[in-house]
Amino acid sequence: MLTNKQDVVKPHLISIVGAGPGDPELLTVRALRRLEQADVILYDALHGTDILDLATPHARKIYAGKHYQDGQHQTERQDRIHEQLKQFAHEGKRVVRLKAGDPFIFGRGAEELAFCFREDLTVEVVPGITAGLAAASCFHIPVTLRNANSMAMFYTGHKRNGGFENMDEVAAVLRANAPVMVYMGLKNLILLGKELMQRKVPTDTPLQIVSRVGHPDQQLFTTQLDAVEAFLSKTDPPMPAVIILGTKAQQIKAETFV
Amino acid sequence: MLTNKQDVVKPHLISIVGAGPGDPELLTVRALRRLEQADVILYDALHGTDILDLATPHARKIYAGKHYQDGQHQTERQDRIHEQLKQFAHEGKRVVRLKAGDPFIFGRGAEELAFCFREDLTVEVVPGITAGLAAASCFHIPVTLRNANSMAMFYTGHKRNGGFENMDEVAAVLRANAPVMVYMGLKNLILLGKELMQRKVPTDTPLQIVSRVGHPDQQLFTTQLDAVEAFLSKTDPPMPAVIILGTKAQQIKAETFV
Repeated sequence: MLTNKQDVVKPHLISIVGAGPGDPELLTVRALRRLEQADVILYDALHGTDILDLATPHARKIYAGKHYQDGQHQTERQDRIHEQLKQFAHEGKRVVRLKAGDPFIFGRGAEELAFCFREDLTVEVVPGITAGLAAASCFHIPVTLRNANSMAMFYTGHKRNGGFENMDEVAAVLRANAPVMVYMGLKNLILLGKELMQRKVPTDTPLQIVSRVGHPDQQLFTTQLDAVEAFLSKTDPPMPAVIILGTKAQQIKAETFV
Repeated sequence: MLTNKQDVVKPHLISIVGAGPGDPELLTVRALRRLEQADVILYDALHGTDILDLATPHARKIYAGKHYQDGQHQTERQDRIHEQLKQFAHEGKRVVRLKAGDPFIFGRGAEELAFCFREDLTVEVVPGITAGLAAASCFHIPVTLRNANSMAMFYTGHKRNGGFENMDEVAAVLRANAPVMVYMGLKNLILLGKELMQRKVPTDTPLQIVSRVGHPDQQLFTTQLDAVEAFLSKTDPPMPAVIILGTKAQQIKAETFV
């Protein structure tokens, strides 16, 4: 049994760990072990406290995340995280940098990893269940479907330099009937929808908002591209939310396909 | 501690479970619990036996997978899996349908789920770490990178109707400097590369083949788009393999970015 197996203490001092969407059961076994062995945990927002409860009581838990529009200077915040990683590693502590979802999907996992390499710190990355795929599984929304689509995309709906990036490519994927999982897109969703429709994405493209996936209060909202504005005028989906655009199959029902 | 928590027996009879890439530590905690509680496990190829060893000895383990070019009729094979799911569920067994990676990324998880709905069987889907993201984490290949890319794609390089699908969209994503994780593409990789270069994907686009990710003999091979043919004439990357195309950052080195 895995849970009884003698645990080998690895030489890694810093583990950049994907925590998955929030449900402790959606941690990987490796992530759980790293939490159980950690001396210090630098954790982000978006997690329930349940996951932190898995650590040993002696572990020091430091909040390193941000809240929506908290006014923090993001570069300074990130620099502080880097300095903490370095400080604790130099003290010989086993450090877990706990990040929501998967460390390499729209977080700053890559930057933190690069910092560790520059500082010659021993580091590993532990993948996590990313929100888009968690949402798909929990709400029965297949992102790939044989004979229906050969691709699926992750996209961040966070605007940069005042606008969305890669709208043409996203629109092309949707026009080809493949799904796009949109991260951090709820705030700009009405505008995103308009930009897509301007690029001839069908107005009846299914749009599914999954709020707080992996938390006990997770919730699915379903609408379509040209109904987003009306939908959001009446409904305020709780954060965090991931949006799944364009799945033909939507939620699987018996009659959906054979 | 999660591992000591009283486990609540859920009413699900059938669990479609993502096993991740092969390393038992990359199972989710929920997947591990389902395996430990299963009466019957229908498992695919690509797994080491380590994962099956996590089940209780009394669990019946039935191989339901295929091997590369094994000559099996795939529709018949899938129908047999469906019938087995139904039969064991009707017998009141706790059934785990164990699939490599994530059930909704290029498997037939969606079809099996739809079958369960049609037959009115109680079913859940447990997400798993998909091979592309496991490869990224294990070999330090970030698929998203702040200020570098806003999207990332999964693609199956399995040809249908004699050719590749969605080549234009895949090429557009790569030309925009975003990565594409290619599943089941090793066999057709030379042709895939040619089709992409015909669509003006830069010939020096990085190409990384990750063989057997999550297994003890996992291995990374690095080349670039216009060197694939020469590379494969000398090297035979072990299966299964996932290909990561087009990451600017490749493996993170200290000097890669600041």
